[in-house]
Amino acid sequence: MPRPAPDPGTPIDELATPRLLLDRQRLQANCERMQTRADELDVALRPHIKTAKTVPVAERASPAEHGPLTVSTLAEAEHFHEAGFTDLTYAVAPTAAKVDRCADLIAGGAELTLIADDPTTLRAIEAAGRDLEEPIGVLIEIDCDGTRGGVDPEEPFLTYLAEMFAEASGVELAGVLTHAGSAYDARGDDELREAAETEREAVVQAAGRLRERGHEVPTVSVGSTPTALSAEDLTGVTEMRPGNYVFFDLYQVGLGVCDVDDVAVTVLAEVIGHRDSDGAGIVDAGSLALSEDRSTAAHDDERDKAYGLVAGLDGQPMTTEEEGEEVLVAETSQEHGLLLTRGGQAPQLRVGDKVRIYPNHSCITAACHDAYTVLDDGEVVDRWARVDGW
Amino acid sequence: MPRPAPDPGTPIDELATPRLLLDRQRLQANCERMQTRADELDVALRPHIKTAKTVPVAERASPAEHGPLTVSTLAEAEHFHEAGFTDLTYAVAPTAAKVDRCADLIAGGAELTLIADDPTTLRAIEAAGRDLEEPIGVLIEIDCDGTRGGVDPEEPFLTYLAEMFAEASGVELAGVLTHAGSAYDARGDDELREAAETEREAVVQAAGRLRERGHEVPTVSVGSTPTALSAEDLTGVTEMRPGNYVFFDLYQVGLGVCDVDDVAVTVLAEVIGHRDSDGAGIVDAGSLALSEDRSTAAHDDERDKAYGLVAGLDGQPMTTEEEGEEVLVAETSQEHGLLLTRGGQAPQLRVGDKVRIYPNHSCITAACHDAYTVLDDGEVVDRWARVDGW
Repeated sequence: MPRPAPDPGTPIDELATPRLLLDRQRLQANCERMQTRADELDVALRPHIKTAKTVPVAERASPAEHGPLTVSTLAEAEHFHEAGFTDLTYAVAPTAAKVDRCADLIAGGAELTLIADDPTTLRAIEAAGRDLEEPIGVLIEIDCDGTRGGVDPEEPFLTYLAEMFAEASGVELAGVLTHAGSAYDARGDDELREAAETEREAVVQAAGRLRERGHEVPTVSVGSTPTALSAEDLTGVTEMRPGNYVFFDLYQVGLGVCDVDDVAVTVLAEVIGHRDSDGAGIVDAGSLALSEDRSTAAHDDERDKAYGLVAGLDGQPMTTEEEGEEVLVAETSQEHGLLLTRGGQAPQLRVGDKVRIYPNHSCITAACHDAYTVLDDGEVVDRWARVDGW
Repeated sequence: MPRPAPDPGTPIDELATPRLLLDRQRLQANCERMQTRADELDVALRPHIKTAKTVPVAERASPAEHGPLTVSTLAEAEHFHEAGFTDLTYAVAPTAAKVDRCADLIAGGAELTLIADDPTTLRAIEAAGRDLEEPIGVLIEIDCDGTRGGVDPEEPFLTYLAEMFAEASGVELAGVLTHAGSAYDARGDDELREAAETEREAVVQAAGRLRERGHEVPTVSVGSTPTALSAEDLTGVTEMRPGNYVFFDLYQVGLGVCDVDDVAVTVLAEVIGHRDSDGAGIVDAGSLALSEDRSTAAHDDERDKAYGLVAGLDGQPMTTEEEGEEVLVAETSQEHGLLLTRGGQAPQLRVGDKVRIYPNHSCITAACHDAYTVLDDGEVVDRWARVDGW
């Protein structure tokens, strides 16, 4: 029995809490900004829909009706394919149990590209591909910075994997793909530019080595929001796959690639009490509405926003009257958040007051909610459902 | 388009990943253990269903068909009422926008008790209660340890709030309620026993003060899994509301109130690759399947299990062959978990191997999934849907 959706036109201060809000104007501006970046860098934009997981955002972020899109789960792949997006890259290596669902999607008309960095994965894809009309396109995942999976672009294993394609009828080498996880550890613009260049170099080098061996490498794919916004040159790259930028968040603000007033998602919460000992405001949004993400802790200075930054209903971050300090979600339990300034002062909030909370990590906070309450000029204009799970 | 549920009888190694598993035998044993505790301590057990959020667990945990149960959201209240549970306590102070849904439930036959620690909340409940046949029962929330909301049991504000009931027709004082959040900071059995006694004393003192003023205080309610399992005496208390115990988790193991082989929920994941730099195993369960909960970090010793403890398909924690070290989920990103020992060694795992991951905090990890795949003796016996959201 889901909570009824609010009617269009409902003002923000009449909405039941907790609730995930999406500012449509900010979303639109973020989508336009990234498309402009992709155009400037002369690469295709294949937005990663893992952050938003909703069709109306895909429609705004993707350059065309049918894609391209990047997905992180088969639930996303199936959902967006059903909504008309046919050009999909599933950017997590599939297990054997998932390959059959991939094959069903392809048989149903999806141009679904998979990734692999291991012979076992490739063999599983190959087995499924043999029953299809055309081989399944597979990108070799490249490790550009040692943060996660992928093949070292300099090692013989890369060409060994590529040779497997030549011997297999069910798969076809679609190209190479990487993700600069290390961009999230970058400090300052120089390090961000470096991370972007490292990401580019790794895939371009891998593509070059494969082409030298006679392989066709149509796709050379990079992707992360910070590198997409920091790269100075993407020569040799064909596409980028940023995802977070549609919403941004406090972590990206801390990295310096956006401002708080670019962040398109907030959690609406209401003050339901105070802690007797220090007067901390207690809101009805806790670990399950905000997530327990503490990524901004990595910034280790005033960019650390505890469990979130508290704003008024207009989206402007609050400050205390006397000290001018910002208000943070200092602690959470399952259904409660405690509001204090960084210095431990209680903000002036009464029971019944509503606040908006900017999240550390929008991909994770959005996943706490089944839908977005979409706002324009402070009024509800729509409700967009998410596709979660696997 | 949700992923199809596995057929009963499916062996665990054939299940698609990631997936939340529930061991039915452990659940049953945990429920029996807590009922025995409640019987020994001569209090009613009103299990908090915020952890499990599924009807079959409520049926096993609650002493009778119609309850009692504790809920943390109105979505839970409505769902469990529809399933036949009528005796419900909603243990989060309601906002004005939520009070109408509470009144609808009561009008529909629920014996729904609310909580309040603020006049604004009480007035909102009162307004809704006036239209009902009987006043709404409200427990005054008591602050026993300064961790969250509630009224100081020694302050005049307690009796001030109680006097408000006398003047209001829509509400009726149902008693007092507290939650020893500080039990989660307790170190060792002595501190746990102290936390339980502090919790008891606070509500018993509050009840005594109210009775001295002529108020009836039928319910005197405490609740947390660690205090429920550590209390030596609950004289003056009428009910307890533990919730986590149905599943337990690594944090509770660290507190010393259960063992790993009592923990009833795990996340099934599959190895999909390795990190080139150190050989870390990469599984297809990341922040969205495990949560980002790091509560065991508070233990600050070998009880800190990073993002989870890795076990084989039989549920036995893995150890590395040479060093005998346990394997942890050392890092997560949205759909990836990285497996290493505490010392940073790579476990011997191949692509395609499946593992089970014990969570730090089962309430939060379970909320990442829409259902439990229920196991008995390593085979699927059922699928139990959860009720999430608000």
